[in-house]
Amino acid sequence: MDYNKVYKDLCVSFKNSFQKTGAEKAVIGISGGIDSALVCAAACNALGYENVLGYFMPYKTSSKESLKDSQILSEQYKFRLEIIDITNTVDTFIEKSNNITLLRKGNIMSRSRMIYLFDKAAENKGIVLGTTNRTELLLGYGTWYGDTASSINIIGSLYKREVYKVSREALMPESIMVKKPTADLWQGQTDEEELGLTYEIIDNILYDIEHNNESRPQLVLKYGSENVEKVVKRVISNSFKRSTPLICESSTLKRKKIDENVFLNLEK
Amino acid sequence: MDYNKVYKDLCVSFKNSFQKTGAEKAVIGISGGIDSALVCAAACNALGYENVLGYFMPYKTSSKESLKDSQILSEQYKFRLEIIDITNTVDTFIEKSNNITLLRKGNIMSRSRMIYLFDKAAENKGIVLGTTNRTELLLGYGTWYGDTASSINIIGSLYKREVYKVSREALMPESIMVKKPTADLWQGQTDEEELGLTYEIIDNILYDIEHNNESRPQLVLKYGSENVEKVVKRVISNSFKRSTPLICESSTLKRKKIDENVFLNLEK
Repeated sequence: MDYNKVYKDLCVSFKNSFQKTGAEKAVIGISGGIDSALVCAAACNALGYENVLGYFMPYKTSSKESLKDSQILSEQYKFRLEIIDITNTVDTFIEKSNNITLLRKGNIMSRSRMIYLFDKAAENKGIVLGTTNRTELLLGYGTWYGDTASSINIIGSLYKREVYKVSREALMPESIMVKKPTADLWQGQTDEEELGLTYEIIDNILYDIEHNNESRPQLVLKYGSENVEKVVKRVISNSFKRSTPLICESSTLKRKKIDENVFLNLEK
Repeated sequence: MDYNKVYKDLCVSFKNSFQKTGAEKAVIGISGGIDSALVCAAACNALGYENVLGYFMPYKTSSKESLKDSQILSEQYKFRLEIIDITNTVDTFIEKSNNITLLRKGNIMSRSRMIYLFDKAAENKGIVLGTTNRTELLLGYGTWYGDTASSINIIGSLYKREVYKVSREALMPESIMVKKPTADLWQGQTDEEELGLTYEIIDNILYDIEHNNESRPQLVLKYGSENVEKVVKRVISNSFKRSTPLICESSTLKRKKIDENVFLNLEK
């Protein structure tokens, strides 16, 4: 696979989509991890760094290394990096909760960052770029209406390991290439530990299912039934995160589904 | 139209969808307005009031009347109402902003409420119910990733005026039936003033477009070109709020679109 071509394709596709929105700036939440880093690289490449606004939004427990990596990133691609401490915001939610779990805390952090990003977009005539890769999208490994919320997602068609391959083509700083993937929602968290599988196995299973049409027996033979089960179950149980809210219907109403084309045709 | 039948249809449709989620409680953000009120009524009808958790979430500028109406609602349908003051939360966002506009403030309020609701859902093994009607969905009159964010929306197939007709069948308290529709994001706000059109005209235009296939000349004759233009433009320019984030593609990757069925078939 020619990942340099893939990188260029994604930059062109993004540039075209961005221009259609009429927005002036691309707003990106930066974690210090590889996914948001690649989004920054591609956005700077497509729009010019002066049109990219990066926000690093730490909570008090966030890793200090992440800040350093965000700064390295901003130096590499020359975009403006701003730091927004979300501690006070997040703590107003937590104060009102009894026995809050780490997972709920993580979701509050992710959604608070979403609010800051969309407000920054509104302030700067911008749109928010997504930073969720295809592996995360499929696994539902992300916060619904939090980090998965965006206008345009440049890397949503790349499996996690492809994010690395494309990042190499984008001349990603080494410190970001080598760190362990983590949502950094609590100290010591790593994706692979939380998921209970390596990204290598996950990506291979997903690719074989989606692009090689492999049957269950074939998959089980290659990866073991427990691993296959884990991935498939997760994809299915999180499918709601990939769709808009379910709308209840009444057959009495004889209501049609919303069809955008009916309105577009009236404009012509 | 038999709106009593419509009400029953929607309650049944909701009950079926709710049971499939495996959730135990329905979590609803209550504004004191008719839309969230009808969602409460239907949820209590479908699940029993003991499985409905209502949250009234005022900001310091919110109307005091709204609180009173929320309490009347909770007495009428017997569900548990809790009050969460969002002032401290919202102000942490505003403090970090220069020259914030009313619209941006309103979006922050709406999204902060979303965070509280989803956290309450996580705490109580619940899901969040949407309160956006079809007119609002079409016009994009709501906050993306804010009040339009939910798991199941009972009233999303009803145009605004139908919400009233169905509410009558649900024995809605009179004070809620007669008040002017408002998002209450700032004092004195009313929907119709902000939209620049009455819901009667809007709903008629939308219905004629969606269900009577009326042509532009026919619509202009009936409603005037300015009104038709206003509605159609709004529907088109807010279509992004009705979809999931746009994902950039690379033809080099030859990537298929995500197909949930491929995974569901493996489960069989």
